[in-house]
Amino acid sequence: MEKILLAHGSGGKVMHEFIKKGILSVLPVKGLTDSAIIKEHSIAFTTDSFVVSPVFFPGGDIGSLSVHGTVNDLTMVGSEPRYISLSLIIEEGFPMEKLKRILDSIARASAEAGVEVVTGDTKVVERGKGDGVFINTAGIGLLREDVCFSPERIEPGDLVLLSGSIANHGVAVMAERNGIEFSPPVLSDSRPLNLLLKELKGYHNAIHAMRDPTRGGLATTLKEIALERKVCIEIYEDAVPVKEQVRGACELLGIDPLYVANEGVFVAFVKEDMSKSILEALKGHPHGEDAAIIGRVKEEPEGVVLLNTGFGGTRMLDMLSGDQLPRIC
Amino acid sequence: MEKILLAHGSGGKVMHEFIKKGILSVLPVKGLTDSAIIKEHSIAFTTDSFVVSPVFFPGGDIGSLSVHGTVNDLTMVGSEPRYISLSLIIEEGFPMEKLKRILDSIARASAEAGVEVVTGDTKVVERGKGDGVFINTAGIGLLREDVCFSPERIEPGDLVLLSGSIANHGVAVMAERNGIEFSPPVLSDSRPLNLLLKELKGYHNAIHAMRDPTRGGLATTLKEIALERKVCIEIYEDAVPVKEQVRGACELLGIDPLYVANEGVFVAFVKEDMSKSILEALKGHPHGEDAAIIGRVKEEPEGVVLLNTGFGGTRMLDMLSGDQLPRIC
Repeated sequence: MEKILLAHGSGGKVMHEFIKKGILSVLPVKGLTDSAIIKEHSIAFTTDSFVVSPVFFPGGDIGSLSVHGTVNDLTMVGSEPRYISLSLIIEEGFPMEKLKRILDSIARASAEAGVEVVTGDTKVVERGKGDGVFINTAGIGLLREDVCFSPERIEPGDLVLLSGSIANHGVAVMAERNGIEFSPPVLSDSRPLNLLLKELKGYHNAIHAMRDPTRGGLATTLKEIALERKVCIEIYEDAVPVKEQVRGACELLGIDPLYVANEGVFVAFVKEDMSKSILEALKGHPHGEDAAIIGRVKEEPEGVVLLNTGFGGTRMLDMLSGDQLPRIC
Repeated sequence: MEKILLAHGSGGKVMHEFIKKGILSVLPVKGLTDSAIIKEHSIAFTTDSFVVSPVFFPGGDIGSLSVHGTVNDLTMVGSEPRYISLSLIIEEGFPMEKLKRILDSIARASAEAGVEVVTGDTKVVERGKGDGVFINTAGIGLLREDVCFSPERIEPGDLVLLSGSIANHGVAVMAERNGIEFSPPVLSDSRPLNLLLKELKGYHNAIHAMRDPTRGGLATTLKEIALERKVCIEIYEDAVPVKEQVRGACELLGIDPLYVANEGVFVAFVKEDMSKSILEALKGHPHGEDAAIIGRVKEEPEGVVLLNTGFGGTRMLDMLSGDQLPRIC
């Protein structure tokens, strides 16, 4: 009898197949993206559950992460995040003091991102039937008439822009989980992308699509988009910003930074003639100082992500396979 | 060190204190009711996580329950449920076939209630770190200009109307959990209350407030309202509909039906002069055939729920104490 595997939640190939064949075949959800667009009421709507382990990690915790994740999903479709719901599933025996730290972190992250927690729910499960605390946040963002980010708008010739260095979140969580300490510590990049987006007012029309490469990492996100939009995305490995220390940590942990989860960067597909201005605008914000143009959209081969390696070769990038990094968010 | 107890999620007194002192003191959420009212955009917004154990029970399952729970929260504030999000936290090893049954149940329950699942999320946790499947649904309902249900509108002299017999859900789940079989089986009352509400068009102005007595049961819900509105609610025990078999089951299980969770009835506070018409309207719908007028609102003593017992005596009802029925929803 077929059973659920960790890989079904990894963000990679197995999860994509599972969602398509195991979930959407039974329960059809139209136009699945980061957030649902409800045009009739000018709102975007999204949900995310967070099961990250451990709940505290360098640079964040499950509380701030649960705010950022939902804020970012709303931001990626071009909406202004405004209202969030908060639902806690707590394991019996979880220390009250830790819960308060998490709630405090949620309060601070919400205030920073400019969203309001307006409704909530609390459930408790018996010891051994959960794992500390799981958090669900759903969110509502306001659509703006002049903004429409959608993979459908991506055109061959668009440049691919990355707003910051990758793999920080995944490495920070994995290091904490495995008791590895880096000095200085590798910090998660968990942060609200709507603040960075504010720098891009005036460029909205030149930005065709945007997505945050969370579970499955940059490679998986690019592959998803290449398949959806039936284009080729060519990336220059040397152009992809990875912090020196993070690169070292990935080597140590035996993982590829292109497949490691991020929680505070986005990849944007932009018109070439505006790309330099957009890059400069991003670099002017502390959350965008490592921004870089990392590649280009081509017509063919359709559905393919090509990585130009530093040695002049190329290789095709597929989605993450298996369950490399379970419970990273 | 203070730790989370099962009672913190029971819906009773301990949970109310915990939410007030443990959660809202750190993370203030304004005007906490079943759903947040976002007047500016004419929507209501709510969230609920479902951890019911077992996931399948007579009359429903965690899937249909997760749709009904959110639909009902939206309905209780007078909004028209429209969009829901669906987030799954699945334990590694959970049988795919059971998951499909649950998803199918969600699809059917959504179609029946007239809501659309528009966005979702899937997470998987390791074996032993969850319990089968937990589901979160958040929902958006549309506010109607002519409808405003709010405890603030309750007045002394209002009659208290209950839309159906109580304790069916809690007894069905407890029986399943303990391997007790009733013949015929006691079925959960889990169902979408917006269908029943449609019978009450034309009476909206006479309905002052409405709430569904879920965790904590009817007694806890009445006590909440008595405290919020600073009134006395007097109930006639003989008038509260409890199915014969459910009453017997409660005696067997040693629980009081007034404190058992419901998932398909509401208590409404209505103007006396319209109460008969409202009752008749409800009785015309299959979900309201057991509807009854069960009591009356009085000015004093404030914050008190008085139960007139069948023997001419009265007793005060408090909120559920402790964790009588953990993981009932």
